[in-house]
Amino acid sequence: MTQLPDASLSRLFNPQAIAIVGASATPGKIGAMPVSLLQQHGYAGRIIPVNPRADTIAGLPAVAALDAVDAEVDLAILAVPAAHAAQALERARPGQVGAAVVFTSGFSETGAQGAAQQAQLCAIARERGIRLLGPNCLGFMNVRRNVYATFSPAPANGVVAPGGIGMVSQSGAFGAYAYSMARERGLGLSHWISTGNEADIDVADCIAWLTHDADTRVIMAYMEGCRDGAKLRRALAGARAAGKPVVVTKIGRTQAGAQAAASHTAALAGDDAVYDALFRQYGALRARTIEEFFNLGYALDTWKHPPQGRRLGIFTISGGVGALMADEAADTGLALPEPAADTQARLLQRVPFASGRNPVDVTGQAVSEPGLLLATADDMLADGRYDALAVFLAAAGSSETLWPTFEAFARQMQARHPGVPLAISALFPPARRRELERLGCLVFPDPSAAVRTIGAVAGLAAHADSDAHDESPAAAPADTPPLLDAYNEVQAMALLRQAGLPASPCALAADADAAVRAVAALEADRDAASGGVPVVLKVVSPDITHKSDVGGVKLNVRGEDAVRRAYADIMAAVRQHRPDARIDGVLVAPMAPKGVECIAGVHCDPVFGPVVMFGLGGVFVEVLKDVSFRLAPFGRDEALAMIREIKGYALLQGARGAPPCDIDALADALAALSRYAHARREDFSSMEINPLLALPEGQGVVALDAVVIRGEEAS
Amino acid sequence: MTQLPDASLSRLFNPQAIAIVGASATPGKIGAMPVSLLQQHGYAGRIIPVNPRADTIAGLPAVAALDAVDAEVDLAILAVPAAHAAQALERARPGQVGAAVVFTSGFSETGAQGAAQQAQLCAIARERGIRLLGPNCLGFMNVRRNVYATFSPAPANGVVAPGGIGMVSQSGAFGAYAYSMARERGLGLSHWISTGNEADIDVADCIAWLTHDADTRVIMAYMEGCRDGAKLRRALAGARAAGKPVVVTKIGRTQAGAQAAASHTAALAGDDAVYDALFRQYGALRARTIEEFFNLGYALDTWKHPPQGRRLGIFTISGGVGALMADEAADTGLALPEPAADTQARLLQRVPFASGRNPVDVTGQAVSEPGLLLATADDMLADGRYDALAVFLAAAGSSETLWPTFEAFARQMQARHPGVPLAISALFPPARRRELERLGCLVFPDPSAAVRTIGAVAGLAAHADSDAHDESPAAAPADTPPLLDAYNEVQAMALLRQAGLPASPCALAADADAAVRAVAALEADRDAASGGVPVVLKVVSPDITHKSDVGGVKLNVRGEDAVRRAYADIMAAVRQHRPDARIDGVLVAPMAPKGVECIAGVHCDPVFGPVVMFGLGGVFVEVLKDVSFRLAPFGRDEALAMIREIKGYALLQGARGAPPCDIDALADALAALSRYAHARREDFSSMEINPLLALPEGQGVVALDAVVIRGEEAS
Repeated sequence: MTQLPDASLSRLFNPQAIAIVGASATPGKIGAMPVSLLQQHGYAGRIIPVNPRADTIAGLPAVAALDAVDAEVDLAILAVPAAHAAQALERARPGQVGAAVVFTSGFSETGAQGAAQQAQLCAIARERGIRLLGPNCLGFMNVRRNVYATFSPAPANGVVAPGGIGMVSQSGAFGAYAYSMARERGLGLSHWISTGNEADIDVADCIAWLTHDADTRVIMAYMEGCRDGAKLRRALAGARAAGKPVVVTKIGRTQAGAQAAASHTAALAGDDAVYDALFRQYGALRARTIEEFFNLGYALDTWKHPPQGRRLGIFTISGGVGALMADEAADTGLALPEPAADTQARLLQRVPFASGRNPVDVTGQAVSEPGLLLATADDMLADGRYDALAVFLAAAGSSETLWPTFEAFARQMQARHPGVPLAISALFPPARRRELERLGCLVFPDPSAAVRTIGAVAGLAAHADSDAHDESPAAAPADTPPLLDAYNEVQAMALLRQAGLPASPCALAADADAAVRAVAALEADRDAASGGVPVVLKVVSPDITHKSDVGGVKLNVRGEDAVRRAYADIMAAVRQHRPDARIDGVLVAPMAPKGVECIAGVHCDPVFGPVVMFGLGGVFVEVLKDVSFRLAPFGRDEALAMIREIKGYALLQGARGAPPCDIDALADALAALSRYAHARREDFSSMEINPLLALPEGQGVVALDAVVIRGEEAS
Repeated sequence: MTQLPDASLSRLFNPQAIAIVGASATPGKIGAMPVSLLQQHGYAGRIIPVNPRADTIAGLPAVAALDAVDAEVDLAILAVPAAHAAQALERARPGQVGAAVVFTSGFSETGAQGAAQQAQLCAIARERGIRLLGPNCLGFMNVRRNVYATFSPAPANGVVAPGGIGMVSQSGAFGAYAYSMARERGLGLSHWISTGNEADIDVADCIAWLTHDADTRVIMAYMEGCRDGAKLRRALAGARAAGKPVVVTKIGRTQAGAQAAASHTAALAGDDAVYDALFRQYGALRARTIEEFFNLGYALDTWKHPPQGRRLGIFTISGGVGALMADEAADTGLALPEPAADTQARLLQRVPFASGRNPVDVTGQAVSEPGLLLATADDMLADGRYDALAVFLAAAGSSETLWPTFEAFARQMQARHPGVPLAISALFPPARRRELERLGCLVFPDPSAAVRTIGAVAGLAAHADSDAHDESPAAAPADTPPLLDAYNEVQAMALLRQAGLPASPCALAADADAAVRAVAALEADRDAASGGVPVVLKVVSPDITHKSDVGGVKLNVRGEDAVRRAYADIMAAVRQHRPDARIDGVLVAPMAPKGVECIAGVHCDPVFGPVVMFGLGGVFVEVLKDVSFRLAPFGRDEALAMIREIKGYALLQGARGAPPCDIDALADALAALSRYAHARREDFSSMEINPLLALPEGQGVVALDAVVIRGEEAS
């Protein structure tokens, strides 16, 4: 992942000369806003108003068109109606203009005519080597360099401080709101970018570019859809490899939301479960709400490093609120290990009615005895059993009298335990809050939000490491034969074996003799079990779906005579019920061993390619929709993660007195399936292995049946 | 529910004369705080410092002890060490003191010695007819009357405005924090009460009293446990009957939280699922976090009436954020009906690229065209299809230029559609925000929080109405015979029939003849089906649990000969496998019809009495713990709610091609079970009906087996 930053985007986002086409001196006009913002905030480069009906604008000499500019223009801001945008860009000399930001709407978001106008604009830009941001966007801001290439009213109400967060939003309104929220919450931004219609530059391009931007430590992205799945994957993988966390809000989590999204934007909202899989897989943190979006961005920006693991210490002066925080920790999957026994004993010596377990409750005594806070918290962290510390100071936090105590506490805890990031919950006055944040300490008025945020970011780095080798999973299986037009059960099983999945041995018998031979072969495989292997016989026919209903299945058949009888019975019954059915023969397979029935599937997402699904059989998939997804290909670690993700996971661990299943083998099977699907991604459209039987630990898994659909046949 | 308010609490919370025992002039002492707060805030009653070592305190004449006060004392504040508290109270003349607030700790929360001290204090108070708040509490405040009977530092950092929220907290630290939060968020309080150790007055008492308090519209309660379940139920029922919503935070939702709670407080944390059932059943809104606690309190206090139903209109100037809000609405179970077709058409005429569906997106055009907002939102609500409206104004909300537009919008929408409460999301400056709130409009910076809060409070009133008759469900079944010491299957089925539950017909046969007669009786019941009813025969023995393992079960037996043979086979097999087993006979029952297997149970909670559980059989209960609870007794509506609450509910609605189940009959069965359990609550400790078979619609339910445990036998 050693891509270079896209130089054309660097020129766009850090321009030395900006021309504003449609520049205006009339306040409120979209062509007036960037001129005044650039001037007002002291942009150091050259500002060139372009307007054929004015000599000067805002004190700057204006020119009539781009080609009248005497120099190179890194950035042309087009603040002219849609109908004139292409025309304006056409006036650029070859090589003169690096990039254009197109504010105006009336392009592809409005229908066919607008789409044609957008295509024309793109063509002209491409011809001239001009990168395009927008159209129908609010532009961008490079906060540190005072580049205000925007007509958003948000900076007019106050600008954000320069900082480490690179923010990119497909939606201008969301972006403007997020800008204002960042200002209110005191978060510093490096860049703010709105991508609008994404005729050229999209959110993925911006994530990739921000990954290389030295000013950016954390990327916050808002998206509604994506047209180039591979590019987005590369961008997220690149950010993770560079250690720049990505927080993302993607609308359309629910059907209602997706419907709303589809009516709003021209972009494909896509199948949300696939986006969810993508974000999990590449360690991007998905925020469900604007508040969560900011809590995550805030934590990742303020803390130098997120917690290394999921062991949380809770330190409180209120036992009740400590319990609330413990509730939240349990919800978010954080562990709450107890302090060492001697640490607990020392605490109880100091504060007789304290609670020495975790939550550690030093009670209100901490307020009257200033040294207590630091001494006990320091003791708690001394032996390295916590990855983060969440502190609740109750109403005492608002006390100016106690401020020196709290400030010293935060400063010294950070100094003594630099590997344990600190979050404090209290109602500090804003200025005090900023002081603590400057020390690298998070402050949340709501202690549960503190814990929830820790839960979301904890172990982010560890995850990135352990999965790094999953990025290049073992090469796809060697060339496999081309896919058939249709698969019967026996062929499907053979295909699974090619893909490296353990499939139940089975054979297609065209007559009773063949069936007997097939059974003998199965027995030979099994070290000639005495008394014969019990087998199942099933009719195989492209015309018969419900085999049992036509007498087409015989279970637990044992011995040659029984096999012959079963074969004859099946044939007779099927011919009677379905005289017209084409019959391929009878499948012979050993009776399935005991295990937990799972389902594994692959479907090809139009944006992201093959996506692997996993779930448990029966009500789990059919009623509870309890499934997990990952984009192919992936390795065993990711497969284990997707197995653990389902709600019915306990069943695989050996619930109801059953032995635990061979979860490693299950993970290997899913990884193999993902590699095969990736290798053959052009060929087939979907596959479902049902059941994929998970056997007890050490015994592996076995696929019992599968359906393969090739090419465009699937819906 | 026409209780009178507790006059002794009225005297406590609205005292005319307050004595402070242990009053002090030294700032920071707990005996100094109430004196100075009462003086500073202009308490209108008499303040009497009690301190034998001072003549005057803070300019007021001091007395040596309570009996030196020349008049009645409505409230004595005890700010003396635990060891002296009882002694101080003992000095009161009979009938002189109405109530005492005991600040100091060192009582039951510290162990056996403290508990003895607390018992002594209680005895003295009881003798003298003195009500007790605390000990180990922060006292209380009557905000409107400036009664500051507290030593909490919270009011010293600024007092809250008087308002309609009555707040009661078992924990002082939580209470103080909540007080400060209320101040920061601009919420007005009527009373603030901390109950501490609850030696006498507990949270339930305070809820009941606040229900009668004319200044209180909404009750916000924090609790850690409860000792008198019946009192808490009465208090919640009373509040609901009076139309005063209760928002409650109860710690210990998760095992981690409950553990933390148990180590913090002397009160029983109890089984959290039971509290959850209690709150659902009595319409109290449970908040999981402090933020949610305040969002709910804020909404219920600001809106005159919560939304009547669950139909939400989303009105936005950003399609993307509209979709985020739609996601949240789906999560919280709100419906998003579309506006009428002509309303949509009118909107699209005005704003060509708007989205007329719900979310209705008027786009940024609303910012440049001020009349658009009101006109389109007004049109949207015109035909009464929404119960609440959530509006998102994006960054435009911070614009002072647009303020008159927004203010007029809020004012007119409220005036024209008083039945549709309004929530606006935008970053208004604090003063603007207050203006909107004064108009009765909610303001949330996070639009998802707005939707989530609407989802929590929507239909609260409707719920109260529809369930009102559940409060007094049909009388418990007429006297049933006393419980046996032990129940075999046949006796258990008979018990269920007594309880009014449909139980499978079955008989205990002591020999083969009896078995044949039992089958004949079953056939007679079924209108003499030709060919005989298929039956099941099962051995009945207190010594045999796994009947199948010893050959004790025969399924699908049909006809007299087969019945005799089955009986003989069972007896032979059981005698062979378990020669020592006591055998009651053989149970004869019809084969179970097709249906969905459910489980219904009752257990007796030590605090709240019989609690009914419902779930689906198999993995649902055993692996997914997918169950719901309600306190007995309850009616059909509540039973329906508990059935709909489980995640596997779709299975009862007819998933996987099966017909929908008779859910009404299932609800009736649960209600009958609850009535029976309530009527016999002294007798038995638990009962489990497994399976309770839900048959297709119109065919009822049937209990197939049950286990009954009486008295103290259960763990």
